[in-house]
Amino acid sequence: MSADESTDVQQPPLTIGIDLGGTQIRVAVLRGTQIYARASRLTGDQPTPENTLPRIYTTLQEALDQAHVSLQEIIGIGVSAPGPLDNRTGTLYEPPNLLSWHATPLKDILVNKYQRPVFVENDANTAALGEYLFGAGRGCQDMVYLTVSTGIGGGVIVKGKLLEGVNGTAAELGHITIDWQGERCPCGNIGCLEALASGSAIARKANEAIADGQGAELLAFARAMLEHTTTIPDKRALPQQDLSTQPLNVPPAVRPDQLPPEELKVTSQTVARAAEAGIPLARAIITQAAEALGAGLVSILHIFSPEMVILGGGVMQMGSMLMEPALKIVQERTMRANLAGARIVLAQLGENAGLIGAGALPLYRQD
Amino acid sequence: MSADESTDVQQPPLTIGIDLGGTQIRVAVLRGTQIYARASRLTGDQPTPENTLPRIYTTLQEALDQAHVSLQEIIGIGVSAPGPLDNRTGTLYEPPNLLSWHATPLKDILVNKYQRPVFVENDANTAALGEYLFGAGRGCQDMVYLTVSTGIGGGVIVKGKLLEGVNGTAAELGHITIDWQGERCPCGNIGCLEALASGSAIARKANEAIADGQGAELLAFARAMLEHTTTIPDKRALPQQDLSTQPLNVPPAVRPDQLPPEELKVTSQTVARAAEAGIPLARAIITQAAEALGAGLVSILHIFSPEMVILGGGVMQMGSMLMEPALKIVQERTMRANLAGARIVLAQLGENAGLIGAGALPLYRQD
Repeated sequence: MSADESTDVQQPPLTIGIDLGGTQIRVAVLRGTQIYARASRLTGDQPTPENTLPRIYTTLQEALDQAHVSLQEIIGIGVSAPGPLDNRTGTLYEPPNLLSWHATPLKDILVNKYQRPVFVENDANTAALGEYLFGAGRGCQDMVYLTVSTGIGGGVIVKGKLLEGVNGTAAELGHITIDWQGERCPCGNIGCLEALASGSAIARKANEAIADGQGAELLAFARAMLEHTTTIPDKRALPQQDLSTQPLNVPPAVRPDQLPPEELKVTSQTVARAAEAGIPLARAIITQAAEALGAGLVSILHIFSPEMVILGGGVMQMGSMLMEPALKIVQERTMRANLAGARIVLAQLGENAGLIGAGALPLYRQD
Repeated sequence: MSADESTDVQQPPLTIGIDLGGTQIRVAVLRGTQIYARASRLTGDQPTPENTLPRIYTTLQEALDQAHVSLQEIIGIGVSAPGPLDNRTGTLYEPPNLLSWHATPLKDILVNKYQRPVFVENDANTAALGEYLFGAGRGCQDMVYLTVSTGIGGGVIVKGKLLEGVNGTAAELGHITIDWQGERCPCGNIGCLEALASGSAIARKANEAIADGQGAELLAFARAMLEHTTTIPDKRALPQQDLSTQPLNVPPAVRPDQLPPEELKVTSQTVARAAEAGIPLARAIITQAAEALGAGLVSILHIFSPEMVILGGGVMQMGSMLMEPALKIVQERTMRANLAGARIVLAQLGENAGLIGAGALPLYRQD
């Protein structure tokens, strides 16, 4: 679809959304929720600003070319980036998945490059904004978005506005204390929601149980899964020199028996499949993660008393085996006044929430 | 001081603040932070709406008479009441300290009685508002007020506005989950901050230790304290029939040896004194409560990234033996981006924060 109708005053203006992730750069030319063109690239094995910025530029130009749109027709660029970051200066602070970007003034760099208004927001906030403006949260004034993935992130809308805090670093909902005498989270806190209920927490618990010799059945299941999978991706085999100019594609693959044994770690997806197959250890691990998620949701309901809590992220695809124990805890533990007004629903925009939310930033920030 | 200068257009208008507590009714005629007159009464042993409302009316009239102000000169009435409550309808929901007030439409009752605008807000929110407008939080745009008392309550200012949520029941910061597999809180949740760090939690831990036979030294200290106190208040001896027309005064007293043994429970104040005197059990109990408070503050900083956290309530008078372990946990566990911009300070308005905040509601709500 071309963007020739950009002169139609009835339509929202054209924007660019950039989703800068730990593994992928995705760029879209958007008009509201309509994605006119999209391009993507891997960030590569050494995603430093020096290596990654040229890839962003190439990907952005590719998206513009595909949409037959010039930079001058774009009213602004919104960027979804890993937090924590300061959304006013657009500077990243020690983002765990892109550590080398610490203190990088991403906003200034892009303003200098493109001479367009640039808005940088952390990825959980852009996804929250996407769901709020165009997804499950349409019509809400007070909502909380929680993404349960490798980590856990949050974005909060209070009376129609993103909760930002003094540095733009509010809504770190993955790092609320759930188990204050428990295990340390990589963030430095003890017993964070993320350390108990994220995909990485599920995988870690499974691998710890295997290392303790309690996971023979789970390990056998994981090996059987691998044997029934002809190929699995192997990032080591990617041709480095071509990445900056080639679009994202499925990386080359190796057979599982070619992997060294120490890489046969169980993932959260494998634990989920094993739980579906009825393996007790897997079920127990997922039920416990779900109950911890429920305990976190109780805190969220007591703190924000929102109209809606929207749950997104890959781990939520586990469905009822995650949702049922979580909602049981919520029902049992939440004060009635805070439970009565709230709906807990699944996200609607999937992996595009952040990209669409980023694209909405130039419009939203003008309010 | 008389309120004759009410015609001066330079001054804020006159308001009435009512602080409805579990044990006291307090009413003030205010002009901003200036308290022109104040009256108070005990709520009595059976503080039902039927018993208590006439006392509110008498106390309010007394405050007006003292200030030489007529009801017509008052632009509005603000009420600080125990939560949870719906601040739009002014209806209380099962307030733990005034259970018989459940579903009482306090706002409508007072509007019918006085024909003035009435604004009802939960007591933690009014105290937060008082500190925000006139106390430690002046000039802040994003602040959190936490009151650590018998229970723990919270009030949050986001971009200059109280965080309310869909039912006006947001900011229940005493009921965030800190220990999700711990003890049940009276609110229904497990491991609430209030269940670990409040005055009642400190007293409960001490009395449990005594019941377990570990508290001989603490119990001896408590008895010695009682023997050095000539009299302690005894609510049972209050003359019930006179309370509705008499102002608050110190109740009659009995000697400690007249109390039945089961009432010799240790209070949080006694634990604090014992800790100051170096009794190890008391120190350990307070340090643990302080560390739990710190863990709660980490959650609060990660969620709101505020400019300021203001700590109020009677338990905070324990001073450094509470603050130091709490701040140590905060320093150790909070993400740098969220810690850097935040100051953690003590409240400035003391027990008047809620009364002054209630008096400010008629002005604040007009914004």
